[in-house]
Amino acid sequence: MNGADSLCDTLLAHGIDVCFANPGTSEMHFVAALDRKPQMRCVLGMFEGVVTGAADGYARMADKPAATLLHLGPGLANGLANIHNARRARTPMVNIVGDHATYHLQHDAPLTSDIEGLAWPMSHWVRTTRTPDAVSHDTAEAIRVAMTPPGNIATLILPADAAWGEAAQTIVSSDRRPAAPQVDEAAIREAAAAIRSGKRTVLMLSGTALRAGALETASRISRATGVRLMAQGSNGRIERGAGRVAIERVPYVVDQALEALSGTEQMILVGAKEPVAFFAYPGKPGRLEPADCRTMELASPEHDLAHALEWLADELGVGHNVTPEVEERADMPLPSGKLDADAVGRAIGALMPENAILCDESVSSGRQFFSLSRGSAPHDYLQITGGAIGLGLPMAAGAAVACPDRKVVSMQADGSGMYTVQALWTQARENLDIVTVVFANRSYAILHGELKNVGAGAPGRNAQRMLDLDHPALDWVSLARGMGVEAERATTSEELVKALQAAMSRKGPYLIEAVI
Amino acid sequence: MNGADSLCDTLLAHGIDVCFANPGTSEMHFVAALDRKPQMRCVLGMFEGVVTGAADGYARMADKPAATLLHLGPGLANGLANIHNARRARTPMVNIVGDHATYHLQHDAPLTSDIEGLAWPMSHWVRTTRTPDAVSHDTAEAIRVAMTPPGNIATLILPADAAWGEAAQTIVSSDRRPAAPQVDEAAIREAAAAIRSGKRTVLMLSGTALRAGALETASRISRATGVRLMAQGSNGRIERGAGRVAIERVPYVVDQALEALSGTEQMILVGAKEPVAFFAYPGKPGRLEPADCRTMELASPEHDLAHALEWLADELGVGHNVTPEVEERADMPLPSGKLDADAVGRAIGALMPENAILCDESVSSGRQFFSLSRGSAPHDYLQITGGAIGLGLPMAAGAAVACPDRKVVSMQADGSGMYTVQALWTQARENLDIVTVVFANRSYAILHGELKNVGAGAPGRNAQRMLDLDHPALDWVSLARGMGVEAERATTSEELVKALQAAMSRKGPYLIEAVI
Repeated sequence: MNGADSLCDTLLAHGIDVCFANPGTSEMHFVAALDRKPQMRCVLGMFEGVVTGAADGYARMADKPAATLLHLGPGLANGLANIHNARRARTPMVNIVGDHATYHLQHDAPLTSDIEGLAWPMSHWVRTTRTPDAVSHDTAEAIRVAMTPPGNIATLILPADAAWGEAAQTIVSSDRRPAAPQVDEAAIREAAAAIRSGKRTVLMLSGTALRAGALETASRISRATGVRLMAQGSNGRIERGAGRVAIERVPYVVDQALEALSGTEQMILVGAKEPVAFFAYPGKPGRLEPADCRTMELASPEHDLAHALEWLADELGVGHNVTPEVEERADMPLPSGKLDADAVGRAIGALMPENAILCDESVSSGRQFFSLSRGSAPHDYLQITGGAIGLGLPMAAGAAVACPDRKVVSMQADGSGMYTVQALWTQARENLDIVTVVFANRSYAILHGELKNVGAGAPGRNAQRMLDLDHPALDWVSLARGMGVEAERATTSEELVKALQAAMSRKGPYLIEAVI
Repeated sequence: MNGADSLCDTLLAHGIDVCFANPGTSEMHFVAALDRKPQMRCVLGMFEGVVTGAADGYARMADKPAATLLHLGPGLANGLANIHNARRARTPMVNIVGDHATYHLQHDAPLTSDIEGLAWPMSHWVRTTRTPDAVSHDTAEAIRVAMTPPGNIATLILPADAAWGEAAQTIVSSDRRPAAPQVDEAAIREAAAAIRSGKRTVLMLSGTALRAGALETASRISRATGVRLMAQGSNGRIERGAGRVAIERVPYVVDQALEALSGTEQMILVGAKEPVAFFAYPGKPGRLEPADCRTMELASPEHDLAHALEWLADELGVGHNVTPEVEERADMPLPSGKLDADAVGRAIGALMPENAILCDESVSSGRQFFSLSRGSAPHDYLQITGGAIGLGLPMAAGAAVACPDRKVVSMQADGSGMYTVQALWTQARENLDIVTVVFANRSYAILHGELKNVGAGAPGRNAQRMLDLDHPALDWVSLARGMGVEAERATTSEELVKALQAAMSRKGPYLIEAVI
C-alpha cells in the first residue's frame, strides 16, 4: 500500500467515511486510493468553500468529523472562511491538503505557497507528514485532535511523495473517542454558592449545553433557583422547538444586548465565552455584561457540559420533582398578503416538519425568526458562527449528508448565498433533501444599517454601488436551475406558503426565491 | 478628516482611482469616505475572489494597481487564491483589509483572526496601520511597494479605529513611479559572450520582456545570432498576434517540455525563472532544461527588461538593419461540423477583433489555442499564472474596467469558471464589454489525464464522482442569465461561429456555452 492508501484506511478505521473534496493533480494518488475504498463516500464541491462548509454542517449533525480534501495552498485558502466558522462552532474537522512532493518545493513551481502558514490562523493543529510511513500515525493524531472535545480543526498536509511512496502496512486505529473531562468540584461549589446568594444571575450556555437534555437540566436549575438562562449569540447547534426548553440568545445589536443583560449581577459561563460585541462601535462598550457583573466559569467548552449542569443541580439540591419548562407546540398562523422578511420567517416557522434541521444564514432578514420559532416543530438550529458569510448553502448540504432521513430547511440571505452558490450543484448531485428559502432583499441590508450607525447619512453613489445587489437583480430561480436544482419564485405570502407546503412534502433539493 | 478619508485621498494622490470591493461592518467608515470621493470608481464583487482577480486583470492592463477592499480575515482568505495568481504574475496590488478596532481584538469576537498571518504567505509586504495619523504614510508605503518593479502585493490592514479616528491633514502624495533598475554591464557581457560562443542557446523571457517592443528586440537578436526565443510557461501578459513577434511557451506537460528544451546548451533568463515542472511526477525531473545546460541570468524580473535586451543587441552588434520577425495576419478558416475544444479555439482565433484582450483560463481545452492564434488580430494574452483556478472571469472583468474601449474575450473552462462564477454579475453590473466562451466539457478534464498519469487505471465511482461535473450538467446559459448576462448555447461549430460573430459585433457582456 502507498501513503494515500494508508491515509484512507486510517480515516475509515476511525469511522470517518465521508470526504468532502475538490482534488487536484497533487492529490491524484489520494483520489486513486479513495477509488479503491467504496465504503468512503466522496462528495464533490465545485469550490473549496463548499467543501469546508459542508464538512462543518456534517460534523455538527453527525457529531463526528468528515474529512476534507483540498488542493495545495490556494485550495486551502478558498476553504478558510468556512474553516473559520467551523473553528468558532468548535466543529471537529480533518482537513487533508495536498502539497507538491517534498523534493519539488525547492523549485518554487507556480502553485507553491506556504501551506502551513495559511493553515495556522484557522486551525488548532497543523502538521506536514514527511514520509509514507508517517502517514497513518499523523492521520490518527489529526483525528484524535479533531475529536478531542469540544472539537478542533486539524489540518494535515500531505506531500505528493508521501502519498505515492510505499507505506508501512500498519494502520493506527481507534474506536475510542477522546472523552470530555469533567469539571472541578471547586467550580461547581463556586457556581452553587453564587446562585444561592440570590443575586441576579445569568447562566450563559453554549456548545453541548444547548442539546435538549442539558437544556432540561439548566431549565430545572432555573425554575428552582430563579437564575436566568441565555445562550451565546452564535452557537454551533441548538436543539429546540416544541417539547424542548427554549432559550434566548445574546442579541447581535449592541444596544439590544446591553439591554438584555442589564441588571445582571453574576454570570456563570457553561461552555460559553463572556459575551462581547460582534464589532466595535465608537463610544460603545466591547463587553456586554454590566461593568460590575461578576463572571465565573462553571465549565469551559471542552468539559462534559451536560454532566456539569447535572452536578450543579445536585449541588443545589434541585430534585427531579422540579420539571423543566418546555415549549408547547405553538399554533402559528400562516402569513398572508405582502411578503416581507417577517412573513417568510413565520411561514417557515409554521411549516417546517418534525425533526427538521434549520440552517440559518438569513443574516438581517431572519433576526425575528429565532424568537418566533420557539414553538415550531422540534428541530436542530444551525447558524453561522464566525461571521464569515457563505456558510449557509454548504452547511445545509453537509447536514443533509449526515442526516438523510431529515428535512433540511435552509434560510439564506441573498448576498451571503452568492458567496458559495456552487453548493446548490452539490445539493443536486447528491439529491439532498433540502428546501432553500432565499431572502431576496437585493442588498447587503445589514451594511445599510451599519453605514447609518457610523453616521454617514444617506448613501451616495459609491456606497450604493457597494451595498446594493440590484442592477441587475439576481434571478435565483435561474441560478438554481443552472445547477440542477428545481426552483420557483414567491412574491406574496400566499405564493410562499403554497411553495413551501409543496416543497416540504417532496424529497430532494428545492429552492424558493422569496422576493422581499 | 478621519483615517478613512486620509486613505482615500492618499490612493487618489497616487493615481489609484479604482477600488474593487466587498466591504463589511468594520469597513463602513472607509465606505463612507469612498462615498465622499466620486472620482474613485468602486466596483463590487459578490465574492472576494472576484475582487482580487479583477484587481489582477485591471493592473495587468492598466500597468498600475487597483485597490481592493476586503472584510477582515475571512474576506482576505476568500481573495487569497487570486492574490496568489497575481503574486505569480508580479501584478502590483494594494489590498486594504479592514479589522476590528485595535482595542476590540482582546475580546476575540467571532470574526477575529490573525489577518497578518493570513496575508503573509501571499503578500510581499504586510502592515497593520495603528493610528489615524499613520494611515497616509502607511498607504503611500503600500503603494510604493506595490508599484516597485516588477510589481508586488502590498496588504495594508486598517483597524476600524484607525479609520474612524481624526487624522492629520497631511496627505503623502507622489507622481513618481519607482523606476526599474538597469542590469549590470557584467551580465550583458556574460550573456553576449555566451551567445557568441555559438552554442545552442535559449533566451527565456517573461514579464515586460513579452511586450511588443521588447519582443522585437529579442527577435532581432535571434535573427542575427541564432538564439532561440522562448517564454515561461505562465506569464502575466503577452502582446502578440499579427504584426508582432510570436513566441512559444514552455509546455505544461513535462514530457513535451523536456522535448522542447532538449539539446539546449545555454539558457539566458530575461525576467524569467528557470523552467520547472508544474507538478512533480514519480521518476520525472523537476528542472526542465538538460542537466548539462548552463543557465545564466541576464536580467531578473525587477529590471528594465526592454533596456536590457536593447543593450544586449548593441553589445552583440545587432544593427537596426536586422528587422524583427513579425507575424502576418493569418487566413484562419472557420471551423465547421462537430464542436470540440480545437474548433472553439480556431473560431476564437479567427474572429477576435483587433486589439482584443484575451483572458485564457481554458486549462486543458485551450492548450492548442496559443499556437494557432499567433497570426490572429493583434491582442494581449492574459493567462492564469499561479495555477489557482477561478481567475478567468474576474480577470476579464478587471481588464475590461482598465480598457473600456477594447473587447475582452474570455476563454473559460467550466470547472474553473464555477470557482468565481459570481464575476458574471460584476460584468453585468458594470456593463463590461466581455465575450465569455465556456468550454463545457463537464469534467475536470485535466485531472482525468493526471489520474491516468499516476497509473490508477480506469476511474471507478469515487474518482468519477470527484472528477466529473455531470449529473447534473451545468446550464451556463441559465447561470449567466441568473446574474444578468445574456447568453446562448452552441452545440455545433456553425452555431458557435454565428454566436461569436454576433457577440463580437455588439457591446456589453455576453456568454456562449460551447458544449464540447
